[in-house]
Amino acid sequence: MEKEIAILRETALFKDLMPEEIRKVMIFARRVSFRADDVIMREGDFGDTLYIILEGTVEVVKRLTLIELDDDSGIEKNKVFTRLSAEQHAVFGEIALLEDTKRTATIKAITDCTFYELKKDDFLRMAAEDYHLGYRILLNLSRIVSTRLRKADEDTIKLTTALSIILKAS
Amino acid sequence: MEKEIAILRETALFKDLMPEEIRKVMIFARRVSFRADDVIMREGDFGDTLYIILEGTVEVVKRLTLIELDDDSGIEKNKVFTRLSAEQHAVFGEIALLEDTKRTATIKAITDCTFYELKKDDFLRMAAEDYHLGYRILLNLSRIVSTRLRKADEDTIKLTTALSIILKAS
Repeated sequence: MEKEIAILRETALFKDLMPEEIRKVMIFARRVSFRADDVIMREGDFGDTLYIILEGTVEVVKRLTLIELDDDSGIEKNKVFTRLSAEQHAVFGEIALLEDTKRTATIKAITDCTFYELKKDDFLRMAAEDYHLGYRILLNLSRIVSTRLRKADEDTIKLTTALSIILKAS
Repeated sequence: MEKEIAILRETALFKDLMPEEIRKVMIFARRVSFRADDVIMREGDFGDTLYIILEGTVEVVKRLTLIELDDDSGIEKNKVFTRLSAEQHAVFGEIALLEDTKRTATIKAITDCTFYELKKDDFLRMAAEDYHLGYRILLNLSRIVSTRLRKADEDTIKLTTALSIILKAS
């Protein structure tokens, strides 16, 4: 229990929370386990759950293009693969706490994994019981999302630049 | 005053807030005016202020590429121009409430304008006085940011698709 609280406090989501506040959140969260190769979420599916990795490593598979561009090499060229592990204090699926929206990546267990899962409705119930705590978690969450937005905006500018240079040259 | 509260209640930021809650926020905000052609913020500058348009129209100028691609036509081809007005219940600069970060667009007044401005520190002070209110504004704000992130992710996929098709054809 103390070890788990220490892990949760290291995540960007629960940054600056006191151990007793983490304990409060844990009442609304649930411990779940997956086996290696299990798919935890699929891109395009609707989801209402955020996951915090306690043990293990997952693979994040994200579509890069709207069409299939694979050639005969058998390598999936239109997808990007990244890994997240407990050592990184990784959280995924966090947008689900804010919106009823489709998953933007597929997440697969690489090793046996243990997570804390927190559902949107449970987060909202927790916040309704303790707005101070809800506010602080939401401030962390919105900063995570805002950092991702800044990164996505930079990617758009880089891609538009590449596209403009190619179109100008042709 | 009542008219202003009605305008503020129509914004995505203050969605579902009661008039008396809007009044509380207004204590921490400030009414400011700009003349037509005034620059309200410049892309790349640091900012700590969010603006809600009460009267007037602004132009949002956003860089699309990292390099200058203008030709002799005199048209700035590497920028995108959009307009925001009081009729749209527009809010801009909202990321400033979350992070100390650079402005991602230049905003210029097209007509004489009146705004409410809310500074990050004032928002945090307001929230510290009323966490329930802070939580609800933050929930609205994080949903705005998350919607923008989804849109940016879709743009990235579209641009990568275009780039892949061109590179495959060449």
